[in-house]
Amino acid sequence: MDEQAKRNALRLIPGAIYVVGVRNQDVDDRASDLNAFIASWVTQCSFKPPLVALGIKRGTRSHAMIRESGVFVINFLAEDQKETAKTFFRDLEVTDTTMNGVAYRIGETGAPVFPDLPAYVECEVVAFHEDGGDHDVVVGRVVAAGFAGQKVRPMTHETSGWSYGG
Amino acid sequence: MDEQAKRNALRLIPGAIYVVGVRNQDVDDRASDLNAFIASWVTQCSFKPPLVALGIKRGTRSHAMIRESGVFVINFLAEDQKETAKTFFRDLEVTDTTMNGVAYRIGETGAPVFPDLPAYVECEVVAFHEDGGDHDVVVGRVVAAGFAGQKVRPMTHETSGWSYGG
Repeated sequence: MDEQAKRNALRLIPGAIYVVGVRNQDVDDRASDLNAFIASWVTQCSFKPPLVALGIKRGTRSHAMIRESGVFVINFLAEDQKETAKTFFRDLEVTDTTMNGVAYRIGETGAPVFPDLPAYVECEVVAFHEDGGDHDVVVGRVVAAGFAGQKVRPMTHETSGWSYGG
Repeated sequence: MDEQAKRNALRLIPGAIYVVGVRNQDVDDRASDLNAFIASWVTQCSFKPPLVALGIKRGTRSHAMIRESGVFVINFLAEDQKETAKTFFRDLEVTDTTMNGVAYRIGETGAPVFPDLPAYVECEVVAFHEDGGDHDVVVGRVVAAGFAGQKVRPMTHETSGWSYGG
């Protein structure tokens, strides 16, 4: 296989920058039982019921948390929220109301929703697929959603200059 | 659930317009054993091995063909190839060298590759996930790829004005 062609082709798949909010099965202490991480590999995969597929790196804490709790929240960033996005690349300090200074609230699924971000979908896991890759594919059913209402352009790989793929 | 918020949020997931080439298990007659269709729901889901996930509508001929043959090709469109894309929304007339007039060749997987499109990845199915949605998620391992080399902007939902999702 032409490895360079493979990389270049796969990088044509448009991606976005999401903040995924996750929790442990039991949330006794928000500081240790909640987490959030940056994700890029998301696609819708059904209208009825509304399903989304999320690629999630194996061996990570968040991978284990989603498996255990069966829920996650995909929070969308606007294209001008790069500073907010960068926050989540650092070690996360979680208080009762903020993560690295970014306000959150507990969503219907018990996982974190970020009110300053323009949209979110809360998901219940319907399948966790281990297909032999370095990431697994978790399929979630959308059970709650929020949208700020204004015209928003999402933070994509193209608008952010960040990429993940290839 | 706020249905309108759900729709608006899901439509923030960036998508592209792909031409997916498929075949029956045995290709005796290209006119009846090859097909191609427009798809939107694609994400990479592993680096090593390189895997992609494709949402594919249940009950379609192409769905059955991928299940049976275990292969598919994701062909990328450039943003200025809208006329070519429209071709694939019509009933497909397949000759030995063209589909609705668009030239193709048989790829390494035996499925159609379109040389006038800027890039492609040929995939072998590693998993076919039926998770209760109106589309299934087929995970394919990239086994061959091509990239035209020039700077190409892919045909996305945003650049085409077409969308699929919500």
